[in-house]
Amino acid sequence: MDSIKVGLLGMGVVGSGTWTVLNRNAKEIERRAGRKIEISKIATLNVDSARSLVNGKAEVVQNAFDLVRDPNIDIIVELIGGDTIALDLVKEAIENGKHVVTANKAMLAKHGNEIFAKASSKGVMVAFEAAVAGGIPIIKAIREGLTANRIKFIAGIINGTTNFILSEMRSTNLPFKEVLQQAQKLGYAESDPTFDVEGVDAAHKLTLLASLSFGIPVQFDSAHIEGISQLSSEDIVHAEKLGYRIKLLAITKYRPDGIELRVHPALIPSSCLLSNVEGVMNAVFVRGDAVGPTLYYGQGAGGEPTASAVIADLVDVTRLQTADPGSRVPHLAFQADSLSDARILPIELISTSYYLRLRVQDQPGVLADISKILAISNISIGSMIQETCIDNKNEANIIFITHESIERNINQAIKQIESLPVVQSKVTKLRIENIN
Amino acid sequence: MDSIKVGLLGMGVVGSGTWTVLNRNAKEIERRAGRKIEISKIATLNVDSARSLVNGKAEVVQNAFDLVRDPNIDIIVELIGGDTIALDLVKEAIENGKHVVTANKAMLAKHGNEIFAKASSKGVMVAFEAAVAGGIPIIKAIREGLTANRIKFIAGIINGTTNFILSEMRSTNLPFKEVLQQAQKLGYAESDPTFDVEGVDAAHKLTLLASLSFGIPVQFDSAHIEGISQLSSEDIVHAEKLGYRIKLLAITKYRPDGIELRVHPALIPSSCLLSNVEGVMNAVFVRGDAVGPTLYYGQGAGGEPTASAVIADLVDVTRLQTADPGSRVPHLAFQADSLSDARILPIELISTSYYLRLRVQDQPGVLADISKILAISNISIGSMIQETCIDNKNEANIIFITHESIERNINQAIKQIESLPVVQSKVTKLRIENIN
Repeated sequence: MDSIKVGLLGMGVVGSGTWTVLNRNAKEIERRAGRKIEISKIATLNVDSARSLVNGKAEVVQNAFDLVRDPNIDIIVELIGGDTIALDLVKEAIENGKHVVTANKAMLAKHGNEIFAKASSKGVMVAFEAAVAGGIPIIKAIREGLTANRIKFIAGIINGTTNFILSEMRSTNLPFKEVLQQAQKLGYAESDPTFDVEGVDAAHKLTLLASLSFGIPVQFDSAHIEGISQLSSEDIVHAEKLGYRIKLLAITKYRPDGIELRVHPALIPSSCLLSNVEGVMNAVFVRGDAVGPTLYYGQGAGGEPTASAVIADLVDVTRLQTADPGSRVPHLAFQADSLSDARILPIELISTSYYLRLRVQDQPGVLADISKILAISNISIGSMIQETCIDNKNEANIIFITHESIERNINQAIKQIESLPVVQSKVTKLRIENIN
Repeated sequence: MDSIKVGLLGMGVVGSGTWTVLNRNAKEIERRAGRKIEISKIATLNVDSARSLVNGKAEVVQNAFDLVRDPNIDIIVELIGGDTIALDLVKEAIENGKHVVTANKAMLAKHGNEIFAKASSKGVMVAFEAAVAGGIPIIKAIREGLTANRIKFIAGIINGTTNFILSEMRSTNLPFKEVLQQAQKLGYAESDPTFDVEGVDAAHKLTLLASLSFGIPVQFDSAHIEGISQLSSEDIVHAEKLGYRIKLLAITKYRPDGIELRVHPALIPSSCLLSNVEGVMNAVFVRGDAVGPTLYYGQGAGGEPTASAVIADLVDVTRLQTADPGSRVPHLAFQADSLSDARILPIELISTSYYLRLRVQDQPGVLADISKILAISNISIGSMIQETCIDNKNEANIIFITHESIERNINQAIKQIESLPVVQSKVTKLRIENIN
């Protein structure tokens, strides 16, 4: 059989990785796919460096639109990123009847509904394993491996930059800013790290995971997003003493009244597997009603790990090209005409446990006042620690661990607590997830 | 579209679980599969109890051959187990053009080559996600998620019974026999536990994983198998002190000269994720050349977790029924005509690190004698501990941790060491795997 012809858009780290792996393991991949998969044309702004890498084995051009319009290309691999030109290219590729493989989570989280609808109407596939958690086949696991289940809960460490920073903050006790600089030096954080450290990248990925899990359209705008830039080393130390670690978690949870969709730092028990996912590694915890708890772990970024996912999609698309489109796995796991309109809950309605830290004047009656406020807001306390402050013996740090409560109640209580004259600080609020 | 009709053979724990989940989540599953999947007929020896469960919604008969011969049935789910009658039923189902979904690792590990060849010649699928690691979609991950990779190494905790026993031995310090009895009481071990505790069940599963990873025929007879029944609590304690835990690992490794295929207890670093897989949980560590290290974790047994895998296969088969057979995922991940004849290496040729424990007379020169034997056998020592025996102050326990060595050399050295007059015991040899 003729080889299947791939047009590769973008020759950065992942693009080069895809070229390298597809060539290095060509025989192995063909033994699996039953057909040779060949990158026949590459579009990149840096034509010269690409030409020196591919060494005449593929045509290299500057204009990416050449590829999406080339009738000899069967599949477009989009590795440009962002949602401006990449979106135009992907739409035109679909329009021209080409299948698309992409690692572009930002584009799909924001424009996925439109893209998938267009692809379905054209009878082509848009595959995106590489868009979430790099080399971990998590899209496939959820979309095909867990089809028997009502997915109940997902908690993912799906941003390597922030997980590296949190691992380092814990092991070195250094503040966020210093560790970020170190991460930048090591190439683990970009010069403008906002998307990673503020949780936006994780929220893009989470948006896709939630749609795959619950059969809902992508709804990035409804995600609640908090990053780690405001996180204090002090809280990492306190969490450790209490038997927790702090991770930037991407969480989505099914509830009868709606879906929780949120990215924020969270305390999780030190003994759970997710706690032990260190450095730039990624992991996704998925609970289904039949399968129970499952976890998927691996490298969430990097040229070859991400290429592993891109190529897995290429093999799938190659196989399913000739299949009746109605028999293919639906883009968002559920048939497009059976997506649910379950609402995304506002953050005030989520329900979880909380870690609250505040500084108070160390005098009789303080604890009673605060406890009363918590009780009135219907918040019960699981445990409490009080420590005299080192810098001022007349003041104390208090940490409360609450039982599961509604965030709105917590926020109300915090407001009242902060208005007490004896309270000397803002209340630091962190969520706790009891993953098992 | 008409529902797809399934004949279910066997109504034990997994059969009942499959019925329950398929009915409870019928709507969710249909939203995914695009078609209703219906168990229309069930064969079981215990007709009455099955009838009371299915409550008229499916026909229940005693003779399983009725189902494999029923022209109205599209897919046979074989959950009888073993490789006698189940094998006959599966073969006849294939002969009659029916697809098969099975959880039967023993049958596939021993007769997989014949079964898959027959299925291919008939153009039907034999799906077996449930045969390895219960609900974890590990077959799909390796067969479809990692198609870009040369798989290098797999280490799995894929037998829940033995992992439960080892977890308990470590936490309670009780000997194997007592913990086994406890496991039997809890229903985690069978009354005849041989297949589990002697590593046979894990080897069945490993045989399948190795074929999927390396594109080789199933070769159960070439697997090296050791169980945990001879494992002493003492070694669990020593391992702990040295920073290791002992797990029953199913290991397969690619080497240019052949493939290692072995099940045995092994020391692994306490800090690695696999070490923290406790109780009846399963996990599989997979390293690919592009993706690097990955890990998949979940429940390896039980009615609903295993049903999760059975139903995922039913959805896949339902989707791919109408596909050109040549475009389906090959049974053993690689196209049947491109399987490799790489040999399985005999255990004497494997290469790993070792833990050696022996009891000696505590007198000058003993360590020198032993060290000399190790050096002559080309074994270098990573670390050594010597402890005076509590029950006899004239004797000492010595533990060596070796660097990576060839098993044949280790065995030769052990023979010579055991022949030294000062050596008072057999040498306990355990393998160490440096997973990361």
